[in-house]
Amino acid sequence: MKLDTIRHSLTHILAAAVKELFPRVKLGTGSVIENGFYCDFDNLKISDKDLLKIEKKMKELIKKEIKPDTFKLTKLAGAYLKGDEKNKMLTRIYGIAFNTKKELDQYLKMQEEAEKRDHRKLGQKLDLFSINEDIGAGLPLWHGKGAILRHIIENYLYEELTSQGYEWLTTPHIGKLSLWKTSGHWDFYKENIYSPIKIDKEEYLLKPMNCPFHVKVYQSKIRSYKDLPIKFAELGTVYRYEKSGVLHGLTRVRGFTQDDAHIFCTPDQMEKELFSILKYGLEILKTFGFKDYEIYLSTRPKKFMGTKKMWQKATDSLKHACEKLKLKYELDPEGGVFYCPKIDIKIKDSIGRPWQCSTFQIDFNLPKAFNISYIDEKGKKKEPIMIHRALLGSLERFIGVLLEHYEGALPVWLSPVQAWIIPITSRHEKYAEEISKKLGSFRTKLKNENETVSKKIRQGEIQKIPYLLVVGDKEMKTKSVRVRERSKGDIGEMKIDKFIDKIWRNYPNLRKN
Amino acid sequence: MKLDTIRHSLTHILAAAVKELFPRVKLGTGSVIENGFYCDFDNLKISDKDLLKIEKKMKELIKKEIKPDTFKLTKLAGAYLKGDEKNKMLTRIYGIAFNTKKELDQYLKMQEEAEKRDHRKLGQKLDLFSINEDIGAGLPLWHGKGAILRHIIENYLYEELTSQGYEWLTTPHIGKLSLWKTSGHWDFYKENIYSPIKIDKEEYLLKPMNCPFHVKVYQSKIRSYKDLPIKFAELGTVYRYEKSGVLHGLTRVRGFTQDDAHIFCTPDQMEKELFSILKYGLEILKTFGFKDYEIYLSTRPKKFMGTKKMWQKATDSLKHACEKLKLKYELDPEGGVFYCPKIDIKIKDSIGRPWQCSTFQIDFNLPKAFNISYIDEKGKKKEPIMIHRALLGSLERFIGVLLEHYEGALPVWLSPVQAWIIPITSRHEKYAEEISKKLGSFRTKLKNENETVSKKIRQGEIQKIPYLLVVGDKEMKTKSVRVRERSKGDIGEMKIDKFIDKIWRNYPNLRKN
Repeated sequence: MKLDTIRHSLTHILAAAVKELFPRVKLGTGSVIENGFYCDFDNLKISDKDLLKIEKKMKELIKKEIKPDTFKLTKLAGAYLKGDEKNKMLTRIYGIAFNTKKELDQYLKMQEEAEKRDHRKLGQKLDLFSINEDIGAGLPLWHGKGAILRHIIENYLYEELTSQGYEWLTTPHIGKLSLWKTSGHWDFYKENIYSPIKIDKEEYLLKPMNCPFHVKVYQSKIRSYKDLPIKFAELGTVYRYEKSGVLHGLTRVRGFTQDDAHIFCTPDQMEKELFSILKYGLEILKTFGFKDYEIYLSTRPKKFMGTKKMWQKATDSLKHACEKLKLKYELDPEGGVFYCPKIDIKIKDSIGRPWQCSTFQIDFNLPKAFNISYIDEKGKKKEPIMIHRALLGSLERFIGVLLEHYEGALPVWLSPVQAWIIPITSRHEKYAEEISKKLGSFRTKLKNENETVSKKIRQGEIQKIPYLLVVGDKEMKTKSVRVRERSKGDIGEMKIDKFIDKIWRNYPNLRKN
Repeated sequence: MKLDTIRHSLTHILAAAVKELFPRVKLGTGSVIENGFYCDFDNLKISDKDLLKIEKKMKELIKKEIKPDTFKLTKLAGAYLKGDEKNKMLTRIYGIAFNTKKELDQYLKMQEEAEKRDHRKLGQKLDLFSINEDIGAGLPLWHGKGAILRHIIENYLYEELTSQGYEWLTTPHIGKLSLWKTSGHWDFYKENIYSPIKIDKEEYLLKPMNCPFHVKVYQSKIRSYKDLPIKFAELGTVYRYEKSGVLHGLTRVRGFTQDDAHIFCTPDQMEKELFSILKYGLEILKTFGFKDYEIYLSTRPKKFMGTKKMWQKATDSLKHACEKLKLKYELDPEGGVFYCPKIDIKIKDSIGRPWQCSTFQIDFNLPKAFNISYIDEKGKKKEPIMIHRALLGSLERFIGVLLEHYEGALPVWLSPVQAWIIPITSRHEKYAEEISKKLGSFRTKLKNENETVSKKIRQGEIQKIPYLLVVGDKEMKTKSVRVRERSKGDIGEMKIDKFIDKIWRNYPNLRKN
């Protein structure tokens, strides 16, 4: 039997079981949903513990075609009749169902894993960020440690990209509405753009994307073929409307910082540039610990801008770049946007979940819309190729994914606090401070509160601090520290110089901060 | 005779001189203005070169009371009758006048100096930023080199402040309007706030100031007296309306990044905190090359919040901080805002002009308005003292001032490009690249365009590059570079290792980048 059919049958069996156990119940509708099913009931007053009873009854009623150990009732919830809040509230029972017990168990285990990794909970526990209704939904406030994490990533990208010849830009958060009329975003994207602000009789937008600003910087002087490729990068904070119901921690927000870049090049340079930004992009993702990807190449849709020849050339360039890098990709035929073929990359986290993150697009629209040009070898005006790319996608979303990927135990180079130094008594504080100084740019915190050492160690483990360095009489005497390494526990006493060696040897990325 | 009387007389003499030279002219009004005077005329068609003729005639007409060499006609402009653009356009003649010729000459020299230092011209010449009507007035776009300069300053502040125990924050650019109703800004400051944006039936503002967000982070957990002082810092980009007529390059804009900080402390900690942020603030200003200040201490106005006792204590704390630091300050009696006494600092640039920059305010309003608290030693809720301070004021304005102060020749640690490496022929390019690598994080650019060395040197001087390093056969052979140092010219050949030594010895701030 097909899984959907099984799930459908289970709605009937659920209804029958509830009716038998609670005869005065009135039946509402039921439905098959992702991973399972649900049924609504009127006149049913039950609690979570009744779910087991109902499940047992279902197993009695079940016919051999469905295996009784492949489903499970998961939760109770309220639901308005026909989904309309003006109607009365019904009781909804949710269940999940799979083909085999193994699949059910896997799903449950994954749910449990995902819950432990929920970045919203980790964000609060590790005091990284908060979202406050008084400020507005989907608008995170970054606290000290979260802001350090952002800063590390921002600086890392800045150093990497400027060393790769990118010109760094900083552009405002508002601009005249006419820019996005020219770009076409206003027409195609209006439902995600916030209402205009009027300044001196003119309408301005909170920027939904950075492209027009980068185009204007490109146009601020005459560009020659000798100047190309010109690569602009910005960490540009953009604001886009999302319905309140879909907002989710950092991974779905109303304001986010894109790691945005635009490459302007000649048609001849396109393939080389694509190869290089793709190669380099994957290296950066690897630095953050993401090595598995799902890659999609989207080709020409039925409605498209430009010529078939241009599309062919651009799509071939994307293919060649993937092939040269030996990347497996899936074709998404006719899946391109009307103005561009593109490659999208979903990074896979440590429990195998894919997250949409990078995009590489060859834009046939903006160069025309803004009439941008360069002077070629013969002194003639030519239209450059414009490549958009976002690598992490957005800092907010990427940090959310990082937290889930590492279950909050961020790699040392990304940890806002890299070590706690714990003096056993106040007598050892001075030595603890010396250690902190010796560790230089390693981010340490002196834990000198009036609490027991074991409590501090417990807290440090909860806070996922990479190193807890305990110092007392013995350590003072031998110029050493007692090291507790995250996930390893106590790894013994170590001369301070040896510990410093160990850090700089093990974490070359640290130098990048 | 008083200077204003002289200037007033000069309007009459100007009118008489014009009437005598151009009898068909019709006289409009005249007025005394800062540094001089002007007169409006109807039916007067003249050009700049007529100004000299008029000036000569004025000197003939002048009575002995006014010295003929103490004034000068400066420019012609159009002016609407009664300042109303619906009226006809008149011809306005401007002049300047002083007590002595020396003062006049000084003023003219200063004007000339100021013009050379105009940051709007330097910004274009050095390709640091542009302001584009298509984006909007008062909204600068930072090009590559300008963005590097911003980045250096941002990173410097980040490193300094976090090492001083500040918690770095990052907050959104919009928030619910109700926040600024609570803070009082909406009522007192409305004309500078942009029109609200509607999201899901609620009104949001483009943030005109960061304070409410910092208060909300403070309130995100319970704070104990043991946690205080809590110091939050942010480079927060705020947007405020300014009339288009007053906008001026980077120094008067519609969106700017404040180096904002808020210190929450107990009343007992207030004086120590003030002393320390003031002391430390002046040290930071010194690092940027500003050592002379005008300091103003503004005291309780007639209308004020809080008690006289609170004001006295806060004002005394401000005075004590200045006195302990041996700072000369001027009192601005009753010059405080209704909710705070404050210290304002104007930094003086290299030609003596003062620029309003830092402010230190003790706020009696926000802690009450947002009902913020900490738990004291006895377990009771208490209201903390809240100190605002901005040190540079805004990155935009400060960079504008920096450019004028240094006439674009920024100190080495702030220079976006610190050295050009100029190979004499293409044969020396590889060696030039080696040099660049050896110089590590020193920001170099390889100048390998097909142009003469002397042209490149000229360009480098115009671009105010601190070091121009020329390399040819001789330098390759001896592992050296030929060094041209900004403002010193050719300082001869130098072994590359010696040059590297020189840099790291002379510019300790470099390590902070």
